[in-house]
Amino acid sequence: MKKFEEKTIRTEHIYDGKVVKLEVDDVTLPDGQTAKRELLKHPGAVAVIPITKDKKIVFVEQYRKPLEKSLVEIPAGKLEPGERPEITAVRELEEETGYTTSDLKLITSFYTSPGFADEIMYIYMTEDLKPLKDAVAGDDDEFVELLELTLDEAKQYAREQRIHDAKTNYAILYLESLERM
Amino acid sequence: MKKFEEKTIRTEHIYDGKVVKLEVDDVTLPDGQTAKRELLKHPGAVAVIPITKDKKIVFVEQYRKPLEKSLVEIPAGKLEPGERPEITAVRELEEETGYTTSDLKLITSFYTSPGFADEIMYIYMTEDLKPLKDAVAGDDDEFVELLELTLDEAKQYAREQRIHDAKTNYAILYLESLERM
Repeated sequence: MKKFEEKTIRTEHIYDGKVVKLEVDDVTLPDGQTAKRELLKHPGAVAVIPITKDKKIVFVEQYRKPLEKSLVEIPAGKLEPGERPEITAVRELEEETGYTTSDLKLITSFYTSPGFADEIMYIYMTEDLKPLKDAVAGDDDEFVELLELTLDEAKQYAREQRIHDAKTNYAILYLESLERM
Repeated sequence: MKKFEEKTIRTEHIYDGKVVKLEVDDVTLPDGQTAKRELLKHPGAVAVIPITKDKKIVFVEQYRKPLEKSLVEIPAGKLEPGERPEITAVRELEEETGYTTSDLKLITSFYTSPGFADEIMYIYMTEDLKPLKDAVAGDDDEFVELLELTLDEAKQYAREQRIHDAKTNYAILYLESLERM
């Protein structure tokens, strides 16, 4: 859908980083006026809801520099250029949790913040976790701690805002909805 | 929680825009190594799930330049500096839908993309909508179209990815969970 399309007149490339790019576009609005749009380019991301045989959810705790605190989240990571999301999902699951899976189910996808960013997030679930024999090395600038929580424990973490991000809050609401069916 | 804290050694200010700021920090990791962190600063945002007397949900369709397409979303907007989120929520509801309310309930809050951005999103709901006598002017660079949909219609929009962002997907899942109770 192109309703109210904003045509680009000019693009200013501000920053080209390891994770994100920033551009500022001059655009023509539907009424002919012009405006500036700040656009954050992101490769996209995946997350996995990993459920163990005893019905616990595997989370990772990591420091989130933009917030200056650590959060407990479902395992997640960025897409490599051209990579299929389900490949990224298995890789991130292996690197962050030491489990692998051959049975991923796509739950949903969504743009995290469409007002300024093009980041899309794919959320998968697996109830078929197998421990890896050998650990897989992840990014050497990532430090994560594993937690396995029941859904009730996870809901308590969310109330305490130790869980407090879009994909993980969505995952908890999704698992609650499955319990009610 | 400060687990795995990353201390800032140096901050490079890249861009200071109308909506976002971009910084790149050099940080010390828990193992003593250093790394770069790309940090998007955002004022935070609110969204409202507006339910009409006949149980329809009020959405707005608008062009999202980062995606080069329009999306159907629940009404939302950015916090002004120092503004309480529930004040922003009423303002955005009035500007975007022509309704007002004196009864907002906070449903949840979450960081939209904690890996690179500090944006927090507060989601409210109201089932007490009153039409405004006079329209309230919104931002003059915003063009939105109103839609009132049943939950089933909204779920169909989500399947077609005309609804496809974190806050609105969360809102639909939340409303589904209320129906099941």
